[in-house]
Amino acid sequence: MSSNSFGKLFTVTTFGESHGPAIGCVIDGCPPGLAIAPEEFRHDLERRATGRSRHTSQRHEADEVEILSGVYEGRTTGTPIALLIRNTDQRSKDYGDVAQTFRPGHADYTYWQKYGIRDPRGGGRASARETTMRVAAAVIARKWLAERHGVRVRGYLAQLGEITPRGFDWDAVESNPFFWPDAAQVAELEKAMDALRKSGDSVGARVNAVAENVPPGWGEPVYGKLDGDLAAAMMSINAVKGVEMGAGFASVAQRGTQHRDEMHLDGFTSNHAGGILGGISTGQPVTVSVAFKPTSSILVPGQSVNLAGEPVQVVTKGRHDPCVGIRATPIVEAMLALVLMDHALRHRAQCGDVGPVAPRIA
Amino acid sequence: MSSNSFGKLFTVTTFGESHGPAIGCVIDGCPPGLAIAPEEFRHDLERRATGRSRHTSQRHEADEVEILSGVYEGRTTGTPIALLIRNTDQRSKDYGDVAQTFRPGHADYTYWQKYGIRDPRGGGRASARETTMRVAAAVIARKWLAERHGVRVRGYLAQLGEITPRGFDWDAVESNPFFWPDAAQVAELEKAMDALRKSGDSVGARVNAVAENVPPGWGEPVYGKLDGDLAAAMMSINAVKGVEMGAGFASVAQRGTQHRDEMHLDGFTSNHAGGILGGISTGQPVTVSVAFKPTSSILVPGQSVNLAGEPVQVVTKGRHDPCVGIRATPIVEAMLALVLMDHALRHRAQCGDVGPVAPRIA
Amino acid sequence: MSSNSFGKLFTVTTFGESHGPAIGCVIDGCPPGLAIAPEEFRHDLERRATGRSRHTSQRHEADEVEILSGVYEGRTTGTPIALLIRNTDQRSKDYGDVAQTFRPGHADYTYWQKYGIRDPRGGGRASARETTMRVAAAVIARKWLAERHGVRVRGYLAQLGEITPRGFDWDAVESNPFFWPDAAQVAELEKAMDALRKSGDSVGARVNAVAENVPPGWGEPVYGKLDGDLAAAMMSINAVKGVEMGAGFASVAQRGTQHRDEMHLDGFTSNHAGGILGGISTGQPVTVSVAFKPTSSILVPGQSVNLAGEPVQVVTKGRHDPCVGIRATPIVEAMLALVLMDHALRHRAQCGDVGPVAPRIA
Amino acid sequence: MSSNSFGKLFTVTTFGESHGPAIGCVIDGCPPGLAIAPEEFRHDLERRATGRSRHTSQRHEADEVEILSGVYEGRTTGTPIALLIRNTDQRSKDYGDVAQTFRPGHADYTYWQKYGIRDPRGGGRASARETTMRVAAAVIARKWLAERHGVRVRGYLAQLGEITPRGFDWDAVESNPFFWPDAAQVAELEKAMDALRKSGDSVGARVNAVAENVPPGWGEPVYGKLDGDLAAAMMSINAVKGVEMGAGFASVAQRGTQHRDEMHLDGFTSNHAGGILGGISTGQPVTVSVAFKPTSSILVPGQSVNLAGEPVQVVTKGRHDPCVGIRATPIVEAMLALVLMDHALRHRAQCGDVGPVAPRIA
Repeated sequence: MSSNSFGKLFTVTTFGESHGPAIGCVIDGCPPGLAIAPEEFRHDLERRATGRSRHTSQRHEADEVEILSGVYEGRTTGTPIALLIRNTDQRSKDYGDVAQTFRPGHADYTYWQKYGIRDPRGGGRASARETTMRVAAAVIARKWLAERHGVRVRGYLAQLGEITPRGFDWDAVESNPFFWPDAAQVAELEKAMDALRKSGDSVGARVNAVAENVPPGWGEPVYGKLDGDLAAAMMSINAVKGVEMGAGFASVAQRGTQHRDEMHLDGFTSNHAGGILGGISTGQPVTVSVAFKPTSSILVPGQSVNLAGEPVQVVTKGRHDPCVGIRATPIVEAMLALVLMDHALRHRAQCGDVGPVAPRIA
Repeated sequence: MSSNSFGKLFTVTTFGESHGPAIGCVIDGCPPGLAIAPEEFRHDLERRATGRSRHTSQRHEADEVEILSGVYEGRTTGTPIALLIRNTDQRSKDYGDVAQTFRPGHADYTYWQKYGIRDPRGGGRASARETTMRVAAAVIARKWLAERHGVRVRGYLAQLGEITPRGFDWDAVESNPFFWPDAAQVAELEKAMDALRKSGDSVGARVNAVAENVPPGWGEPVYGKLDGDLAAAMMSINAVKGVEMGAGFASVAQRGTQHRDEMHLDGFTSNHAGGILGGISTGQPVTVSVAFKPTSSILVPGQSVNLAGEPVQVVTKGRHDPCVGIRATPIVEAMLALVLMDHALRHRAQCGDVGPVAPRIA
Repeated sequence: MSSNSFGKLFTVTTFGESHGPAIGCVIDGCPPGLAIAPEEFRHDLERRATGRSRHTSQRHEADEVEILSGVYEGRTTGTPIALLIRNTDQRSKDYGDVAQTFRPGHADYTYWQKYGIRDPRGGGRASARETTMRVAAAVIARKWLAERHGVRVRGYLAQLGEITPRGFDWDAVESNPFFWPDAAQVAELEKAMDALRKSGDSVGARVNAVAENVPPGWGEPVYGKLDGDLAAAMMSINAVKGVEMGAGFASVAQRGTQHRDEMHLDGFTSNHAGGILGGISTGQPVTVSVAFKPTSSILVPGQSVNLAGEPVQVVTKGRHDPCVGIRATPIVEAMLALVLMDHALRHRAQCGDVGPVAPRIA
Repeated sequence: MSSNSFGKLFTVTTFGESHGPAIGCVIDGCPPGLAIAPEEFRHDLERRATGRSRHTSQRHEADEVEILSGVYEGRTTGTPIALLIRNTDQRSKDYGDVAQTFRPGHADYTYWQKYGIRDPRGGGRASARETTMRVAAAVIARKWLAERHGVRVRGYLAQLGEITPRGFDWDAVESNPFFWPDAAQVAELEKAMDALRKSGDSVGARVNAVAENVPPGWGEPVYGKLDGDLAAAMMSINAVKGVEMGAGFASVAQRGTQHRDEMHLDGFTSNHAGGILGGISTGQPVTVSVAFKPTSSILVPGQSVNLAGEPVQVVTKGRHDPCVGIRATPIVEAMLALVLMDHALRHRAQCGDVGPVAPRIA
């Protein structure tokens, strides 16, 4: 069905369950000649990894990427690149009772209804573990986009429950475990998380991401729009419930005079469009905002049913994040990069490697 | 590139420019034996049509669908169904000056940057005119979904600028030109629209849609999720800037105890998930909410540039809606139906025509 | 299902039944800026048309192409190009009795078994009428390939029943209604066809096609091979039972020393490979040979069954070619051009618009 | 680009180079609930393996399949099934000089022209090593097809150079290393191969395959025809130069009265169609015949050029089959099974799990 593949021309197919032997991906369509080494995956995978702080779940995954194919003497050859990560920390005993019950807010029930069988270990295929391979694949996309077009993709946590950033500094984002843009608020966040953990509850989050230096012209009308593909990409991430481009839902209450981004040769006066008009990039930064629901794996008991059709109380034990959104920033960035990479190739398929068209708005 | 096609197994390919000779679509993968007649398209196309009230643009499109193929003796044959609508009301003179300028908030500039050529008549391919064929194709999807699975898809206008519904009544929705669920507010809406038109400005809107009786099990992990495909579908509609499933962005400030939908055999206690968990339908109503930006075609002059690279003032004359969202409800419904239709077929491809699996939550 | 679409990046979707209101196609992914006019389709459609000689069926189809979209001021815009041809010569009375019987060698029975319904008028979707749109779409592909890469695609009838060409002259091919490369044999062919028609029987044929100036590097390992896609393309033509690339089935009895094409910088010493190695073009002419079965619509009665499950004698009345292969040359050329066009775009998607790589074999 | 994926609904993506760390595949779309164990791959992989006789190359690959995902407690779960085989016998020294030269008849030159880089070790991605994963994936397809529909897929060597079978016995096929259907000829074949090896040359072969019990109705008009997909599948196998369905090229010289398969309720009188009409299965055995060129890796020196653009003499040392077709039978069977599996799912997507339609020809 190819439902585990993402992208038309830079196609990433992922596989693997949370507690199976391994997870991995196959990247098809990567341009040849790109230098890539196993150690280049490390930084991004560590950024994503659980266990990076006491505020995310305490699994220790030694996510070492093995490149199985598609790279020769350190360069991509144009053939499919397969990446493999062994699951080393399985502790499947944590999930033993889960096999008989449907946890509220999880995919347990829906997988069961769809397939009549499910792998209950650690959420199986529905686990956020799968997103590791998105981040890995995006390492390659990000490198090519940067080298070829100077594209830079960055993200940050824009809301944690009801807390929003007071200040904004890109440098701050990488200096704290929350990807929070205001360093002065980190203590407040830690306190909030501690209280949350103590209560056994969880909370939602909002993640924003931005891609700079995207050339104008990427994206395709009308079902291959850049924002359409971004929306699908973001909504495919576990726990995502909403996606906004540019001004997003704020557009509803805006006036046309306010929303439209006026144009001068030295630039647009605003970016309510989020860098996309008619599904095609304008040359402005592409901005996306994503809503994550509070994780459903919590210690507070919840009402559910079991396989036998009996009412049960469910408590999710084990290692879980009280806010799944905290470690989502690298995943949102990854999906943004993967969509851009795909459209970079799609653009040159139809329109060739063209230079700037006049007039070009700065 | 297939970027003008939507759906994997119920594939709708649309074509046509706003002011070209015709618009149309080809539907590939429709199950055989479905009864369908040209007049069955009329109701839905009229619901969508511009000119239905003084609050939408005053074009009069006599949208008569011609079935060119795929139907024999009133029934679908399994071969591609081509639908054609001639453009009768072209008045291309309205758009003459548009060819030389890039209107702020429109796709003019991005199409130019992408292709180095563009059809400026009425927005060309970027016009909302294209969505007519989505509504037409969805007529077939809705009929099959209703006959086969009892699925019902409905939508309504949930916000107009800053106005929100006070009451809710499905019957009201079809009784006013706004698809507004509270009949008592219609006068207020008309007054707001009149003021808006007078000011030459426009405003955004929110449209909600719901699909009832969707069986559990539709949707595919992990890049073929039902909500992922819905997000792409909605974001592909002109002027859409945001998509929410279920609780959407409200999830950000929710607690896990609040968000998760507890389960009993006689039903879920809430539907924050919007009928989807892990990308697969739960059996609850599938709910989606969509943000429309204020239309950019307004009478208030705006700053822009022209093809010669000179600064210009742009005023969009001609017939335009001061709120594009007003006539968007049928389009949102259509995209919801098309996604469900596609997943109905995808589900039975992999899992067969299976009956209910126990335990089944009501 | 997209089974009526061909090509990944230059995607042609065809629709229409032989005796329905119209046939047509939508071409998605065409590069922008290509000059194209309705009259440019005429020559190729006439080459393909039935009725061009007394040896092909006597339908008179006035195949006038209407361009419905994707072209503005005579140039492609990058948006989908829809082409429409009305069916003017339907004479559906000829096919009246066909609805109740399954003609041997036709798709009647298989469509019935698949769909439980079929359009019996003129073969419906299974008619060779559909190939008209392949030829039309290929007009665009051939023009782009010629302008951009100097590619030339040509074909000829290489065998008619047991008759094979004695001489070979490309100029002769276009000078006789058989696309036969030896003008001296035309009288012999006509005599054979007359005898065949008199006997009420039919005969098979072989068509060869060649593409010159294909750059090295087109085609993709391993399921997107140029020859793999060509094989599918040719086998999708009505009545085709075999496809050969280069030496084809003669390779079976060849030795490696004989088959392998040795390489010098000024060229290959032979072309048993048919211009393709490892699924990728070598720069030599791409050669393909296609076997057409004798048409099954013949006057000699044949044993079959009817819808009621009774044995019946079937005689196919009406206008039919005693050799369907005679008019197949333009169709084989068209499919060769469409595959090359698709791969031209696919190549530049992954590898860019690159110039020659050294060493380049002439 | 997805060019390393095969199948629309039962999608097999393969990866890996001949002498890289591993080869593998990801199977997406497999129905849930199918029992499958690692040891079930052994038989088919051994049938395919090189080294099974002195007439095939002497590599010893211990092809042990590891199931990385998609199977839980011995049953498929509906999520992607990843299979991995480590390359244990690399001996890359054999291929050292190959990096600088383009071997005639190989993909060396075309990969170089396409990508500007290539993995020369053992043919890299262009090696027949890749076909191992086709056979592995087909193990799953064959099991499902057999359990669900009683489909049986078998093949045999139908020609070796100029030698053709005198008798035919399915039991003989599995009893000799040539998959030859006449046991009495095995000594003759061995003698021919010995002579060939002594001469340092190679020879071509023809492989036939048959699928029995395929229900009528599989396959889709017009670009998703069962025979179209089979042609692509077969042509995608290394060294294949021709594909025939049913009577194949013999159809060219046949008369319509001879070729058409007359129909009775108790069966067809012949099977020149090869079980397919209009691209859709008839219910008769699906038959396909495939031409393999003589392997290009031979000991007789051949003229070529090197990377520096100098003329060179090339001799292929190392372990190579003097007839690549000898071990191709399991691969042809695999591709036949994969295409049927894909169409089984495609058929039920559009038409449902329908029972027999009357009248049904035995």
